[in-house]
Amino acid sequence: VHTLKVETGAHLEMVDVTAGVRRVVKEAGIARGICHLFVPHTTAAITINETTDPNDRGDMIAAFLKRLPIGGDCLTEEGGAVSHVLSSLIGPSENVLVEEGRLVLGTWQAIYLCEFDGPRSRNVLLRVMAE
Amino acid sequence: VHTLKVETGAHLEMVDVTAGVRRVVKEAGIARGICHLFVPHTTAAITINETTDPNDRGDMIAAFLKRLPIGGDCLTEEGGAVSHVLSSLIGPSENVLVEEGRLVLGTWQAIYLCEFDGPRSRNVLLRVMAE
Amino acid sequence: VHTLKVETGAHLEMVDVTAGVRRVVKEAGIARGICHLFVPHTTAAITINETTDPNDRGDMIAAFLKRLPIGGDCLTEEGGAVSHVLSSLIGPSENVLVEEGRLVLGTWQAIYLCEFDGPRSRNVLLRVMAE
Repeated sequence: VHTLKVETGAHLEMVDVTAGVRRVVKEAGIARGICHLFVPHTTAAITINETTDPNDRGDMIAAFLKRLPIGGDCLTEEGGAVSHVLSSLIGPSENVLVEEGRLVLGTWQAIYLCEFDGPRSRNVLLRVMAE
Repeated sequence: VHTLKVETGAHLEMVDVTAGVRRVVKEAGIARGICHLFVPHTTAAITINETTDPNDRGDMIAAFLKRLPIGGDCLTEEGGAVSHVLSSLIGPSENVLVEEGRLVLGTWQAIYLCEFDGPRSRNVLLRVMAE
Repeated sequence: VHTLKVETGAHLEMVDVTAGVRRVVKEAGIARGICHLFVPHTTAAITINETTDPNDRGDMIAAFLKRLPIGGDCLTEEGGAVSHVLSSLIGPSENVLVEEGRLVLGTWQAIYLCEFDGPRSRNVLLRVMAE
Protein backbone atom coordinates (compact mmCIF):
# COMPACT_ATOMS: atom_id res chain seq x y z
CA VAL A 1 0.00 0.00 0.00
CA HIS A 2 1.35 3.42 -1.02
CA THR A 3 0.24 6.55 0.78
CA LEU A 4 -0.03 10.09 -0.61
CA LYS A 5 -0.14 12.71 2.13
CA VAL A 6 -2.28 15.78 1.50
CA GLU A 7 -2.60 18.92 3.64
CA THR A 8 -5.90 20.63 2.92
CA GLY A 9 -6.34 24.34 3.47
CA ALA A 10 -10.08 24.97 3.62
CA HIS A 11 -13.34 23.49 4.98
CA LEU A 12 -14.37 22.43 1.46
CA GLU A 13 -11.65 21.89 -1.11
CA MET A 14 -10.74 19.75 -4.10
CA VAL A 15 -7.00 18.95 -4.20
CA ASP A 16 -5.54 17.66 -7.47
CA VAL A 17 -3.47 14.53 -6.61
CA THR A 18 -2.95 13.33 -10.19
CA ALA A 19 0.81 13.95 -10.28
CA GLY A 20 1.34 11.93 -7.09
CA VAL A 21 -0.78 9.04 -8.37
CA ARG A 22 1.12 9.01 -11.67
CA ARG A 23 4.41 8.84 -9.75
CA VAL A 24 3.25 5.83 -7.67
CA VAL A 25 2.05 4.01 -10.80
CA LYS A 26 5.35 4.67 -12.55
CA GLU A 27 7.34 3.39 -9.56
CA ALA A 28 5.15 0.27 -9.33
CA GLY A 29 6.57 -0.77 -12.70
CA ILE A 30 3.40 -2.60 -13.76
CA ALA A 31 2.62 -2.52 -17.49
CA ARG A 32 -1.09 -3.39 -17.43
CA GLY A 33 -3.54 -3.43 -14.56
CA ILE A 34 -5.67 -1.31 -12.25
CA CYS A 35 -4.73 1.48 -9.87
CA HIS A 36 -6.99 1.37 -6.79
CA LEU A 37 -7.42 4.59 -4.80
CA PHE A 38 -8.93 4.71 -1.32
CA VAL A 39 -9.48 7.49 1.21
CA PRO A 40 -9.51 6.19 4.82
CA HIS A 41 -11.60 9.14 6.07
CA THR A 42 -15.32 9.68 6.65
CA THR A 43 -15.48 13.40 5.82
CA ALA A 44 -13.41 13.26 2.65
CA ALA A 45 -13.74 11.46 -0.70
CA ILE A 46 -11.98 10.82 -3.98
CA THR A 47 -13.23 11.68 -7.45
CA ILE A 48 -12.13 12.22 -11.02
CA ASN A 49 -13.23 15.37 -12.82
CA GLU A 50 -12.19 18.26 -15.02
CA THR A 51 -8.59 19.34 -14.70
CA THR A 52 -8.20 22.85 -13.31
CA ASP A 53 -5.81 23.68 -16.14
CA PRO A 54 -6.39 26.05 -17.73
CA ASN A 55 -9.78 27.19 -16.47
CA ASP A 56 -10.14 26.62 -12.71
CA ARG A 57 -13.10 24.35 -13.26
CA GLY A 58 -12.22 22.55 -10.00
CA ASP A 59 -13.12 25.60 -7.98
CA MET A 60 -16.38 25.90 -9.85
CA ILE A 61 -17.28 22.29 -9.02
CA ALA A 62 -16.42 22.88 -5.36
CA ALA A 63 -18.67 25.93 -5.34
CA PHE A 64 -21.56 23.83 -6.64
CA LEU A 65 -20.93 21.01 -4.17
CA LYS A 66 -20.98 23.60 -1.40
CA ARG A 67 -24.44 24.66 -2.48
CA LEU A 68 -25.91 21.14 -2.64
CA PRO A 69 -29.03 21.36 -0.48
CA ILE A 70 -28.90 18.45 1.94
CA GLY A 71 -31.63 18.26 4.53
CA GLY A 72 -32.73 21.73 3.54
CA ASP A 73 -29.40 23.19 4.55
CA CYS A 74 -26.01 23.55 2.94
CA LEU A 75 -22.60 22.28 3.93
CA THR A 76 -21.37 25.52 5.41
CA GLU A 77 -24.39 25.88 7.66
CA GLU A 78 -24.36 22.40 9.15
CA GLY A 79 -22.14 20.32 11.36
CA GLY A 80 -20.44 17.03 10.60
CA ALA A 81 -23.38 15.09 9.18
CA VAL A 82 -23.44 16.98 5.87
CA SER A 83 -19.70 16.30 5.49
CA HIS A 84 -20.43 12.60 5.99
CA VAL A 85 -23.25 12.59 3.44
CA LEU A 86 -21.04 14.25 0.81
CA SER A 87 -18.36 11.66 1.59
CA SER A 88 -20.76 8.83 0.71
CA LEU A 89 -22.25 10.64 -2.32
CA ILE A 90 -18.83 11.15 -3.92
CA GLY A 91 -17.41 7.96 -2.40
CA PRO A 92 -14.13 6.84 -0.80
CA SER A 93 -12.76 4.70 -3.67
CA GLU A 94 -11.91 5.04 -7.35
CA ASN A 95 -10.17 2.78 -9.87
CA VAL A 96 -8.19 3.83 -12.92
CA LEU A 97 -6.93 1.53 -15.67
CA VAL A 98 -3.18 1.23 -16.22
CA GLU A 99 -1.84 0.58 -19.72
CA GLU A 100 1.81 0.64 -20.87
CA GLY A 101 2.75 1.54 -17.31
CA ARG A 102 0.59 4.70 -17.29
CA LEU A 103 -2.77 5.83 -15.92
CA VAL A 104 -5.49 5.79 -18.58
CA LEU A 105 -7.24 9.13 -17.99
CA GLY A 106 -9.28 11.18 -20.44
CA THR A 107 -7.74 14.34 -21.84
CA TRP A 108 -9.49 16.61 -19.33
CA GLN A 109 -9.57 14.24 -16.34
CA ALA A 110 -7.70 14.80 -13.08
CA ILE A 111 -7.91 12.91 -9.76
CA TYR A 112 -9.08 14.93 -6.76
CA LEU A 113 -9.10 14.43 -3.02
CA CYS A 114 -12.34 16.06 -1.86
CA GLU A 115 -12.06 17.69 1.56
CA PHE A 116 -15.42 18.18 3.31
CA ASP A 117 -14.25 19.03 6.83
CA GLY A 118 -10.87 20.74 6.60
CA PRO A 119 -8.36 22.01 6.95
CA ARG A 120 -6.76 18.66 7.89
CA SER A 121 -4.00 16.18 7.13
CA ARG A 122 -5.39 13.52 4.77
CA ASN A 123 -4.12 10.30 3.20
CA VAL A 124 -4.86 8.74 -0.17
CA LEU A 125 -4.03 5.01 -0.22
CA LEU A 126 -3.05 3.33 -3.49
CA ARG A 127 -2.51 -0.20 -4.68
CA VAL A 128 -1.58 -1.09 -8.25
CA MET A 129 -2.76 -4.54 -9.29
CA ALA A 130 -1.13 -6.22 -12.30
CA GLU A 131 -3.29 -7.89 -14.94
CA VAL B 1 -18.05 -15.24 -4.89
CA HIS B 2 -18.98 -14.99 -1.23
CA THR B 3 -22.43 -13.78 -0.18
CA LEU B 4 -23.41 -11.93 3.00
CA LYS B 5 -27.12 -12.12 3.67
CA VAL B 6 -28.76 -9.08 5.29
CA GLU B 7 -32.33 -8.69 6.53
CA THR B 8 -33.26 -5.02 6.60
CA GLY B 9 -35.92 -3.73 8.96
CA ALA B 10 -37.03 -0.35 7.61
CA HIS B 11 -37.77 1.50 4.35
CA LEU B 12 -34.49 3.46 4.67
CA GLU B 13 -31.71 1.93 6.71
CA MET B 14 -27.92 1.67 6.89
CA VAL B 15 -26.80 -1.78 8.09
CA ASP B 16 -23.19 -2.18 9.29
CA VAL B 17 -21.74 -5.25 7.50
CA THR B 18 -18.09 -4.67 8.47
CA ALA B 19 -17.80 -7.71 10.73
CA GLY B 20 -19.10 -10.02 8.00
CA VAL B 21 -16.73 -8.56 5.41
CA ARG B 22 -13.77 -8.92 7.79
CA ARG B 23 -14.69 -12.59 8.32
CA VAL B 24 -14.78 -13.30 4.55
CA VAL B 25 -11.42 -11.58 4.04
CA LYS B 26 -9.88 -13.57 6.88
CA GLU B 27 -11.23 -16.86 5.46
CA ALA B 28 -9.93 -15.98 1.98
CA GLY B 29 -6.42 -16.22 3.39
CA ILE B 30 -5.00 -13.58 1.04
CA ALA B 31 -2.18 -11.44 2.43
CA ARG B 32 -2.31 -8.49 0.02
CA GLY B 33 -4.97 -7.48 -2.47
CA ILE B 34 -8.37 -5.90 -2.93
CA CYS B 35 -11.77 -6.81 -1.46
CA HIS B 36 -14.51 -6.08 -4.00
CA LEU B 37 -18.04 -5.52 -2.68
CA PHE B 38 -21.13 -5.53 -4.90
CA VAL B 39 -24.85 -5.19 -4.21
CA PRO B 40 -26.97 -6.98 -6.86
CA HIS B 41 -30.02 -4.77 -6.19
CA THR B 42 -31.38 -1.59 -7.78
CA THR B 43 -32.90 -0.01 -4.67
CA ALA B 44 -29.96 -0.61 -2.33
CA ALA B 45 -26.30 0.45 -2.32
CA ILE B 46 -23.01 0.01 -0.48
CA THR B 47 -20.95 2.71 1.17
CA ILE B 48 -18.23 3.31 3.74
CA ASN B 49 -18.80 5.91 6.42
CA GLU B 50 -18.57 6.74 10.10
CA THR B 51 -18.90 3.79 12.45
CA THR B 52 -21.98 3.95 14.64
CA ASP B 53 -19.84 3.23 17.69
CA PRO B 54 -20.04 5.05 19.93
CA ASN B 55 -22.24 7.85 18.65
CA ASP B 56 -24.97 6.53 16.33
CA ARG B 57 -23.66 8.66 13.49
CA GLY B 58 -25.07 6.08 11.05
CA ASP B 59 -28.61 6.98 11.99
CA MET B 60 -27.80 10.65 11.55
CA ILE B 61 -26.50 10.01 8.04
CA ALA B 62 -29.64 8.02 7.19
CA ALA B 63 -31.76 10.90 8.43
CA PHE B 64 -29.96 13.28 6.10
CA LEU B 65 -30.20 10.93 3.13
CA LYS B 66 -33.92 10.67 3.79
CA ARG B 67 -34.24 14.42 3.47
CA LEU B 68 -32.30 14.72 0.19
CA PRO B 69 -34.63 16.66 -2.08
CA ILE B 70 -34.87 14.73 -5.34
CA GLY B 71 -37.25 16.03 -7.94
CA GLY B 72 -38.64 18.44 -5.37
CA ASP B 73 -39.77 15.60 -3.15
CA CYS B 74 -38.18 13.39 -0.55
CA LEU B 75 -37.67 9.64 -0.39
CA THR B 76 -40.55 8.96 1.94
CA GLU B 77 -43.03 10.82 -0.23
CA GLU B 78 -42.16 9.16 -3.53
CA GLY B 79 -42.39 5.73 -5.08
CA GLY B 80 -39.60 3.56 -6.42
CA ALA B 81 -37.81 6.08 -8.61
CA VAL B 82 -36.27 7.99 -5.71
CA SER B 83 -34.99 4.69 -4.29
CA HIS B 84 -33.35 4.01 -7.65
CA VAL B 85 -31.75 7.46 -7.82
CA LEU B 86 -30.28 7.06 -4.32
CA SER B 87 -28.98 3.63 -5.37
CA SER B 88 -26.99 5.23 -8.23
CA LEU B 89 -25.85 8.24 -6.18
CA ILE B 90 -24.34 6.04 -3.46
CA GLY B 91 -23.48 3.26 -5.91
CA PRO B 92 -23.60 -0.57 -5.95
CA SER B 93 -19.86 -1.27 -5.61
CA GLU B 94 -16.96 -0.48 -3.27
CA ASN B 95 -13.37 -1.67 -3.00
CA VAL B 96 -11.23 -1.91 0.09
CA LEU B 97 -7.50 -2.61 0.20
CA VAL B 98 -6.29 -5.76 1.98
CA GLU B 99 -2.91 -5.75 3.72
CA GLU B 100 -1.44 -8.46 5.98
CA GLY B 101 -4.68 -10.39 5.49
CA ARG B 102 -6.87 -7.58 6.86
CA LEU B 103 -9.14 -4.84 5.52
CA VAL B 104 -7.42 -1.44 5.44
CA LEU B 105 -10.11 0.84 6.88
CA GLY B 106 -9.68 4.20 8.59
CA THR B 107 -10.14 4.36 12.37
CA TRP B 108 -13.73 5.57 12.09
CA GLN B 109 -14.77 3.75 8.90
CA ALA B 110 -17.40 1.03 8.70
CA ILE B 111 -18.99 -0.65 5.65
CA TYR B 112 -22.75 -0.20 5.25
CA LEU B 113 -25.44 -1.78 3.15
CA CYS B 114 -27.82 1.07 2.33
CA GLU B 115 -31.46 -0.01 2.13
CA PHE B 116 -33.67 2.37 0.13
CA ASP B 117 -36.79 0.22 -0.30
CA GLY B 118 -37.08 -2.10 2.69
CA PRO B 119 -37.67 -4.05 4.65
CA ARG B 120 -36.24 -6.79 2.43
CA SER B 121 -33.74 -9.66 2.21
CA ARG B 122 -30.54 -8.33 0.63
CA ASN B 123 -27.22 -9.79 -0.50
CA VAL B 124 -23.74 -8.31 -0.47
CA LEU B 125 -21.40 -10.12 -2.88
CA LEU B 126 -17.66 -10.21 -2.19
CA ARG B 127 -14.57 -11.26 -4.09
CA VAL B 128 -11.06 -10.95 -2.67
CA MET B 129 -8.39 -10.55 -5.36
CA ALA B 130 -4.77 -11.30 -4.50
CA GLU B 131 -2.03 -8.91 -5.56
CA VAL C 1 -8.13 -2.20 -22.59
CA HIS C 2 -11.34 -2.73 -24.53
CA THR C 3 -13.42 0.21 -25.71
CA LEU C 4 -17.18 0.38 -26.21
CA LYS C 5 -18.21 3.29 -28.41
CA VAL C 6 -21.51 4.98 -27.61
CA GLU C 7 -23.30 7.73 -29.55
CA THR C 8 -25.64 9.62 -27.25
CA GLY C 9 -28.69 11.40 -28.60
CA ALA C 10 -29.74 13.90 -25.94
CA HIS C 11 -28.35 16.38 -23.38
CA LEU C 12 -29.22 13.99 -20.53
CA GLU C 13 -29.52 10.30 -21.31
CA MET C 14 -28.92 6.86 -19.83
CA VAL C 15 -27.68 4.38 -22.47
CA ASP C 16 -27.84 0.67 -21.64
CA VAL C 17 -24.40 -0.83 -22.46
CA THR C 18 -24.94 -4.20 -20.75
CA ALA C 19 -24.92 -6.26 -23.96
CA GLY C 20 -21.60 -4.76 -25.06
CA VAL C 21 -20.01 -5.37 -21.65
CA ARG C 22 -21.23 -8.99 -21.64
CA ARG C 23 -19.66 -9.49 -25.08
CA VAL C 24 -16.26 -8.15 -23.94
CA VAL C 25 -16.32 -10.37 -20.83
CA LYS C 26 -17.19 -13.42 -22.92
CA GLU C 27 -14.37 -12.69 -25.39
CA ALA C 28 -11.89 -12.18 -22.53
CA GLY C 29 -12.32 -15.87 -21.72
CA ILE C 30 -11.74 -15.37 -17.98
CA ALA C 31 -13.66 -17.72 -15.67
CA ARG C 32 -13.47 -15.78 -12.39
CA GLY C 33 -12.49 -12.19 -11.73
CA ILE C 34 -13.58 -8.57 -11.92
CA CYS C 35 -14.76 -6.47 -14.86
CA HIS C 36 -13.58 -2.86 -14.42
CA LEU C 37 -15.53 -0.15 -16.25
CA PHE C 38 -14.24 3.41 -16.69
CA VAL C 39 -15.57 6.48 -18.49
CA PRO C 40 -12.75 8.84 -19.62
CA HIS C 41 -15.07 11.88 -19.67
CA THR C 42 -15.86 14.65 -17.18
CA THR C 43 -19.50 15.23 -18.12
CA ALA C 44 -20.55 11.57 -18.27
CA ALA C 45 -20.58 8.70 -15.77
CA ILE C 46 -21.28 4.99 -15.41
CA THR C 47 -23.85 3.36 -13.16
CA ILE C 48 -25.82 0.17 -12.62
CA ASN C 49 -29.55 0.40 -12.14
CA GLU C 50 -32.93 -1.00 -13.10
CA THR C 51 -33.15 -2.54 -16.55
CA THR C 52 -35.47 -0.64 -18.89
CA ASP C 53 -37.15 -3.91 -19.84
CA PRO C 54 -40.03 -4.08 -19.63
CA ASN C 55 -40.99 -0.81 -17.95
CA ASP C 56 -38.79 2.08 -19.15
CA ARG C 57 -37.56 2.69 -15.62
CA GLY C 58 -34.32 4.11 -17.09
CA ASP C 59 -36.18 7.10 -18.49
CA MET C 60 -37.84 7.64 -15.12
CA ILE C 61 -34.45 7.71 -13.40
CA ALA C 62 -33.11 10.16 -15.99
CA ALA C 63 -36.12 12.39 -15.38
CA PHE C 64 -35.36 12.46 -11.66
CA LEU C 65 -31.66 13.13 -12.18
CA LYS C 66 -32.62 16.03 -14.42
CA ARG C 67 -34.60 17.55 -11.58
CA LEU C 68 -31.83 17.25 -8.96
CA PRO C 69 -31.50 20.76 -7.55
CA ILE C 70 -27.81 21.64 -7.62
CA GLY C 71 -26.86 25.12 -6.53
CA GLY C 72 -30.54 26.03 -6.54
CA ASP C 73 -30.84 25.31 -10.23
CA CYS C 74 -31.37 22.23 -12.35
CA LEU C 75 -29.27 20.61 -15.03
CA THR C 76 -31.22 21.99 -17.95
CA GLU C 77 -30.95 25.56 -16.72
CA GLU C 78 -27.21 25.61 -16.08
CA GLY C 79 -24.01 25.37 -18.05
CA GLY C 80 -21.22 22.83 -17.76
CA ALA C 81 -20.66 22.86 -14.01
CA VAL C 82 -23.84 20.96 -13.17
CA SER C 83 -22.86 18.31 -15.72
CA HIS C 84 -19.51 17.98 -13.93
CA VAL C 85 -21.13 17.70 -10.50
CA LEU C 86 -23.47 14.92 -11.71
CA SER C 87 -20.43 13.17 -13.21
CA SER C 88 -18.75 13.05 -9.77
CA LEU C 89 -21.96 12.17 -7.90
CA ILE C 90 -22.62 9.12 -10.11
CA GLY C 91 -18.90 8.48 -10.69
CA PRO C 92 -16.67 7.46 -13.61
CA SER C 93 -15.95 3.86 -12.55
CA GLU C 94 -17.82 0.66 -11.68
CA ASN C 95 -16.77 -2.92 -11.03
CA VAL C 96 -18.76 -6.07 -11.63
CA LEU C 97 -17.86 -9.57 -10.46
CA VAL C 98 -17.26 -12.25 -13.09
CA GLU C 99 -18.12 -15.88 -12.30
CA GLU C 100 -18.12 -18.84 -14.69
CA GLY C 101 -17.11 -16.43 -17.45
CA ARG C 102 -20.17 -14.23 -16.97
CA LEU C 103 -21.05 -10.90 -15.34
CA VAL C 104 -22.69 -11.33 -11.94
CA LEU C 105 -25.60 -8.87 -12.13
CA GLY C 106 -28.86 -8.91 -10.18
CA THR C 107 -32.02 -9.94 -12.00
CA TRP C 108 -33.08 -6.34 -12.64
CA GLN C 109 -29.66 -4.73 -13.03
CA ALA C 110 -28.31 -3.18 -16.22
CA ILE C 111 -25.15 -1.12 -16.84
CA TYR C 112 -25.69 2.46 -18.07
CA LEU C 113 -23.52 5.13 -19.56
CA CYS C 114 -24.91 8.39 -18.15
CA GLU C 115 -24.69 11.31 -20.58
CA PHE C 116 -24.83 14.72 -18.88
CA ASP C 117 -23.74 16.97 -21.77
CA GLY C 118 -24.80 15.33 -25.02
CA PRO C 119 -25.34 14.52 -27.68
CA ARG C 120 -21.75 13.31 -28.07
CA SER C 121 -19.50 10.37 -28.97
CA ARG C 122 -18.50 8.61 -25.74
CA ASN C 123 -16.24 5.71 -24.78
CA VAL C 124 -16.58 3.11 -22.03
CA LEU C 125 -13.23 1.48 -21.22
CA LEU C 126 -13.13 -2.09 -19.86
CA ARG C 127 -10.52 -4.34 -18.34
CA VAL C 128 -11.28 -7.86 -17.11
CA MET C 129 -8.93 -9.00 -14.33
CA ALA C 130 -8.62 -12.72 -13.61
CA GLU C 131 -8.73 -13.96 -10.01
